[in-house]
Amino acid sequence: MLDPANPELLTLPGGGRSTATRLVVLDHSIDELYGDRVRAYFDANSVPVEYLTLPGLEESKSIENVLKIVSRLNDVGTNRLSSPPIAIGGGVLTDVVGLAASLYRRGIPYVRVTTTLLAQVDVSVAAKTGINYEGYRNRLGTYSPPPRTLIDRMFLATVPRHQLRNGMGEILKMALIKDPRLFALLERHGADLIETRFQDPDGTLGAVASEVIGRAIAGMAEELEPNLWEKNLRRSVDYGHSFSPLVEMRALPELLHGEAVTLDCVFSAVLAVRRGLLDPADLDRIVAVTRRLTLRPSHPLFCDADLLREALADTVRHRDGQQNLPILTGIGRVCFLNDVGDAEIAAAAAVMETMLDTDPVSAAR
Amino acid sequence: MLDPANPELLTLPGGGRSTATRLVVLDHSIDELYGDRVRAYFDANSVPVEYLTLPGLEESKSIENVLKIVSRLNDVGTNRLSSPPIAIGGGVLTDVVGLAASLYRRGIPYVRVTTTLLAQVDVSVAAKTGINYEGYRNRLGTYSPPPRTLIDRMFLATVPRHQLRNGMGEILKMALIKDPRLFALLERHGADLIETRFQDPDGTLGAVASEVIGRAIAGMAEELEPNLWEKNLRRSVDYGHSFSPLVEMRALPELLHGEAVTLDCVFSAVLAVRRGLLDPADLDRIVAVTRRLTLRPSHPLFCDADLLREALADTVRHRDGQQNLPILTGIGRVCFLNDVGDAEIAAAAAVMETMLDTDPVSAAR
Repeated sequence: MLDPANPELLTLPGGGRSTATRLVVLDHSIDELYGDRVRAYFDANSVPVEYLTLPGLEESKSIENVLKIVSRLNDVGTNRLSSPPIAIGGGVLTDVVGLAASLYRRGIPYVRVTTTLLAQVDVSVAAKTGINYEGYRNRLGTYSPPPRTLIDRMFLATVPRHQLRNGMGEILKMALIKDPRLFALLERHGADLIETRFQDPDGTLGAVASEVIGRAIAGMAEELEPNLWEKNLRRSVDYGHSFSPLVEMRALPELLHGEAVTLDCVFSAVLAVRRGLLDPADLDRIVAVTRRLTLRPSHPLFCDADLLREALADTVRHRDGQQNLPILTGIGRVCFLNDVGDAEIAAAAAVMETMLDTDPVSAAR
Repeated sequence: MLDPANPELLTLPGGGRSTATRLVVLDHSIDELYGDRVRAYFDANSVPVEYLTLPGLEESKSIENVLKIVSRLNDVGTNRLSSPPIAIGGGVLTDVVGLAASLYRRGIPYVRVTTTLLAQVDVSVAAKTGINYEGYRNRLGTYSPPPRTLIDRMFLATVPRHQLRNGMGEILKMALIKDPRLFALLERHGADLIETRFQDPDGTLGAVASEVIGRAIAGMAEELEPNLWEKNLRRSVDYGHSFSPLVEMRALPELLHGEAVTLDCVFSAVLAVRRGLLDPADLDRIVAVTRRLTLRPSHPLFCDADLLREALADTVRHRDGQQNLPILTGIGRVCFLNDVGDAEIAAAAAVMETMLDTDPVSAAR
């Protein structure tokens, strides 16, 4: 993507190039690792751009950063349509730039370049933008699909391993709700994919990396396509996202999004086993794969029944008064529950406590 | 609307009533004048509501007030769909509540009750929400039409006269771009309508008031319906809105929106006469009607050619690099210009200077 001869990054959504100045917003890590190449790219193409660099931490999903971007759009003199800003970074950065763009002049287009595993398999496909507010995740945002999203797996070569684990959390979710083949690939190759950072372009693992990323993206697109604006609040892609939003916020900065999602996936599977909906052997496989991916299957906050109940209460408001809780009936199959009670949550939290002891991250070292 | 037996204010967009608590956001003046009746209405209907009162000044269209509303939506425990907040006030209030609602959980429905003349004929019909930022009007916002907008002319009985003049500015614009009959009604009855505050339910003026408001709303709806999301940036409803946004911001708090729009209408008509597009007699009629409506036809900031050029430059960015300047070719007819130059603007500004002397507001006393 950063080869100056490749026009993809410059071409406007409708074709052609902008003559007006464009704002390029870089994730802090991208600036550090690729800043020179990015600047060389635009210089070589003689395109007038200005740069803004922002941190990519979850805490950066703030109204302050949205306004910072808006101020720069003002300074640059951004047009309504023909000089869309370009965001290069992970999901945090593209969520914040996306929200700024969707508010600026009541919405201008933007270009989204995703550089982390999580952003490539999840954020890239979605229409969402958002920031956190008052301890609630994505409390403010819009549905504003950018007309152009670019993915280059090359960026994964420099993504730190804990960020790859983070992305694996969302891939695992996708496998659990609809793709047994993807689950099997994670069981067999997940650890090696993290080890090789999804690169190995000529070896067998390169083909596996392509298949894993491809299946995750295709699965997500298939789920979102008929329900992009979330008119239907019974969404299987919400698996792993029922209890985790509040837990993730309370745990900041300890848990990354995909780590919190994984914990929710395990917790929800425990609920399913206790209901007799899921075979205990499947739960064992799920826990085993999280450990192989060096993702924790449990965490003290997922043993806190009060917090989990509070988290579910806010999710119920988000699902307009219904739990609509996606629950596994097998690996690759989901049903929805609307009657999960406090006692059940407490019992499942107690099971989570039994899985606390191992620290897969250090065990894997 | 505030008769407890009238269910309109309670009925949810999809029918039925909310059992969850709803947030009612009141314009400060509405709370002062109607606060008791509003509270009595909800009490009598045993609907759980909480109240928030905000000022209705243009300066209140701020991110701070959006966040204040969001915090209260959090406190109240607002659902995704079934407990939409209710905004009762003028355009400032409904713009701010609309933006908060359109961002909350990436968008929840809201109910809009417009209480000023300007809001009833203009804001009510549109899908826009917005706040000002860094001295630019509506720099941030969304297109989020609420599923339910209610208009009750009764509120106009207590609207101060300068606010009625403000609304008349938008009605005048609508008359100029497409409705000679509406223009004639303003010439003949405009001053009396302000005097009687659009009430006189049994007299002749009551019928005129209905026709004037009805034509203004219908004209606006007709223009917006095929272009609600502003995909087409050549909009005749932008008449009066090419130079005024920046002037209005610079003049704060002196000029109300409709006053700034009126000044832009006159200035643009001067441009049209200088181009030979508009009969000077029509300009005379326009200036005469503004004076009859006790709206100023000129203002020192509309004699400042540098400011007007700067205002047009930002409007050009808003219209994606084109002027798309709506210009009258007669009363009720518009064309678009894309080649208005600096010298023309300076010459028209000089003409505006000759109209400065009269103060129609005090002249009318």
